Parts: sequence; structure tokens; C-alpha cells
Amino acid sequence: MNIAIIGLGIIGGSFCKALKKHTKHHVIGINRTPGVAREALAQGAVDEIGDAQSLGKADVVFLCMYPQACVDYIRENGSKIKKGAIVTDSSGIKSAICPQLKELSQKHGFVFVGSHPMAGKEKNGFEASEAQLYEGASFIITPCGADDRHVEALAELARSIGFGQIKLSTPEEHDRMIAFTSQLPHVLACAYVMSPSCPNHKGFSAGSYRDVSRVANINSRLWSELFLENREPLTEELDIFAENIRKIADAVKQNDRQKLENLLEQGHKVKEMLGE
Amino acid sequence: MNIAIIGLGIIGGSFCKALKKHTKHHVIGINRTPGVAREALAQGAVDEIGDAQSLGKADVVFLCMYPQACVDYIRENGSKIKKGAIVTDSSGIKSAICPQLKELSQKHGFVFVGSHPMAGKEKNGFEASEAQLYEGASFIITPCGADDRHVEALAELARSIGFGQIKLSTPEEHDRMIAFTSQLPHVLACAYVMSPSCPNHKGFSAGSYRDVSRVANINSRLWSELFLENREPLTEELDIFAENIRKIADAVKQNDRQKLENLLEQGHKVKEMLGE
Repeated sequence: MNIAIIGLGIIGGSFCKALKKHTKHHVIGINRTPGVAREALAQGAVDEIGDAQSLGKADVVFLCMYPQACVDYIRENGSKIKKGAIVTDSSGIKSAICPQLKELSQKHGFVFVGSHPMAGKEKNGFEASEAQLYEGASFIITPCGADDRHVEALAELARSIGFGQIKLSTPEEHDRMIAFTSQLPHVLACAYVMSPSCPNHKGFSAGSYRDVSRVANINSRLWSELFLENREPLTEELDIFAENIRKIADAVKQNDRQKLENLLEQGHKVKEMLGE
Repeated sequence: MNIAIIGLGIIGGSFCKALKKHTKHHVIGINRTPGVAREALAQGAVDEIGDAQSLGKADVVFLCMYPQACVDYIRENGSKIKKGAIVTDSSGIKSAICPQLKELSQKHGFVFVGSHPMAGKEKNGFEASEAQLYEGASFIITPCGADDRHVEALAELARSIGFGQIKLSTPEEHDRMIAFTSQLPHVLACAYVMSPSCPNHKGFSAGSYRDVSRVANINSRLWSELFLENREPLTEELDIFAENIRKIADAVKQNDRQKLENLLEQGHKVKEMLGE
């Protein structure tokens, strides 16, 4: 197959490298900044540098840009996509963009299947991409009405490049869960390192500091877009979290050992139940 | 030297194993539950099983019990300790116990030097202990008035079993910093996994879920004691954190992208400045 990857950042770059490592597909890299595409070609991460005209020969298209940029790109170039080709995004939010992409797919005769690779790093750009980024990770698919044949084709492609599991979901369920599993940890990490104590942590810190603070090294522009396009579910999780922090803080302030132990035990029980 | 380790949980057990791995010192294991001490002996983690009477021949004593239990133990058995021996605790809080241990040292003629090994796991007990737990970790020493010769002797011992750095501190500074580096992450982790979304995370989660939630698998009895004996610094950090969460949550609710980006950028800047 001819596979076009649009946007050669960490996500798109890792798709290219994983495709080249695991498959024989012909990989077309499309990137706004030409220097990055040339670097990808030089490293053998893509077989060819393409542009919007290349969409006519792609059997599968991965949109690996910021969420709204994916929609804008297809609005502008959707007519160039081959009829029947599978187009997927890789965005961290779904409800805010899947309906538009679905509509555009019907207008232009391609098949839209939403997806979200559950992997990343606290670094950005093509230079942070790696062939093994997706190894064992979950690949979430939001079919958005696409038929099983196309969903299975995308799932098969994901498995072939190393993903460990496929999770089918709706845009709404995806967004609710991602608010908890991914967005909330990024908020916590940022709020955590904003303490005036943080700059002095060295020598006083170990694994728990390292783990909680890791994703504070955030791409603030991308995550602001992700947070705001998922405002309701994120706000709900933030409210629940703030309330649980308040309960624990109250038990500490009131010096109520039994209450505090009961609250911490809830955390312990959840992790135990999940076998983590 | 004869080194007595009192309390063979993950911390004490790891001291025993690290001493046996790296040094020729004679290790005496003292534990309330005899079965654990026998297991330690069978595994070669200690050279001998001791009891309070063994304190008379120990040159260095590591107290590896819950904070108040360390004080109680020395109150009961301090008179049996060899004159001039170095006694250290390994507690995660200092202001609440160092003054008492210092006083007892003066009464009984031993030398008290506080310490706190900055390492641990989300598991407990001797079976979780490992010879390499302290490899590269920070060993915080609160001299509490002990002279340099004794502080250096303890530091040298810590370096000899793999610690990567020695950090000298006062009990007050230690407690303030630990509230941020260690206690707050444990509160966050517990409050985080208390979300009703948590049990359904599988397939929707990746590294940020894993890292933020890791220490929620908490020993609720131990950490309740640690939190309550460090109430003021922890409360202060909790208040700062709750306020920062509120700021970010407000920016999300108000759909204020510029404000949100500025807040997240603060997190990014701190991590960048620290080179993390």
C-alpha cells in the first residue's frame, strides 16, 4: 500500500519509522517544513517526500497534526484524496473533530476512521520520534460509522507496526476516558511543579517526584488546544480530583488519623483491584 | 564493624542486603516477627539474628521502623546501646522524632545522627527489599548536633553501599522539602485514582496514567503517620497545589486559551530550567 503520513512530529515520525521497520508499505511523508521531510528521507523513515498532490495515490492517510489543523487540512485538500482511501487522524480528542472529518469523508468519497495512538513522550518533533514508540501500546479506534472492513484494515495495520491492543470506542467515551487517563495527569504535573519548593528538589527527591512531575515538561500550545476542546469531561475530572484532594487535606488539617487512613486505603484498594 | 539493623522491612532489609553485597561488616538483623529474621538469615542478608541484647556490641545501629516506633524502641532499649555507637533512623519525617532521639542519645551516651534514604517502592516488607534499592539515590543526613567525624562516618558508610549523593539538612528543611517531593505525590496519586473513571482506564491509558498513579498503591498506615507528623509543611504544599489546580481549572472553564497556555508554560519552564 501507499501510506501518506501528514505531519512529521513525534507521532507522525514514529508512524513512518514503525512502518519502515515492520512493513513493506511505501511511505510518503508530507510536512509543512521541508527541512524535516528531507531529514526523514535522509534517515530512511520515508520513501518519498510528498505534498497534497500525493494524496491521489495514497491508500491510507494518517493525519498527525494538531486537532483543528487536521480538519483545516482536509477542508482544503479533501478533494485530492483517492476515492475509497482510509483516512485516520491521531488526535487526543475526538468529539471536537470526528463529526467534521466524517462529513468531509462523505463529501469527498474517502473513508474516515478516527484513531488515537496511546503513546507519547515529554519531547516533541521528528527528532523525538522512534520506531518503537508504539510497541505494546493501545491503539484506540473510533469507527464513527465506518464499516467493519475498514476498521479491521486499520486495526491490522496498527497491529503490524507493534501496537499491543486495539480498543474500539465512541468519540464521547474516548474523550471522557482521556480526560482522566491523560489530560488530568498533565494538569497535575504542571500544578505540582509550580510549587516554589520545586526548584530546590534535588537531593530531596526520588521516584515519586520524578514520576509525578515528568509530563510537566509540556507542549503548552498543543495541550491548551486539547484541554479546551475537551472542556466538559476535563472540568468534570478536575472537580472530582479537587474534591478528593480537599477530603485528604481536611483529614490532615483535622489531625484525623482514622479518616486519613480510610481515604488513603481507597487509593490502595483501587490499585490492588486493578493488579497494579 | 558490627552493624545492627532493627526492622527488616523494605528499608531495613535493603540496608542488610546492600551491606552484605558491598562491605565486609558483620550485619545483625533484629525484627519483631522472628520468621522474617530467619528468612533474612537463610538468604544471607544478615550474619546473625539479634535482639535488644545485641545492641551492646553494635558500632552502628539503623532504626528502620515507623517513626514513633523508633523513639519507643530507643526509650525502652537505649541503655543497652554501646557508648559512642552511632545510631541513625531512616524515617521520612525528622522534626517530630529527631529531638527526642537526640535527647535519648545524650542520656545514654550514644551518638544520634538522623538520616533518610531517598528510595522506596510501592511495595512493602522484607520480600520487597533489594541490595540495589539505594543505588545512586540520595542519602539525607540531619546531623542534629553530632560532630563532623560521626556525620562523615555515616556518610562514608552510605556511599559504600551505593548511595549516589549525601545531602546535609536540618530537620525543618528536610520536612518542608519532603512534604513537596514525597508526601504531596502520594496524596495526588491517591486522590487521582479515587476518580470513578479509574477502574475503566485499561486500553485508554499510557505512561502518564502509569506514572501519576504508581504510588497510590500506598501503605496507608505508615503514610498516615508520616503525613500527620508533618502536618504544617504538608498542609502548606497542599494549599499551594490546590490553588494552582484551581487556576488551571478556571482557565479551562473560562475557555481562556492565552491564560491556560501561560499557566502550562510555567510548568514547562520549571522542568526546562531544571534540565529534566
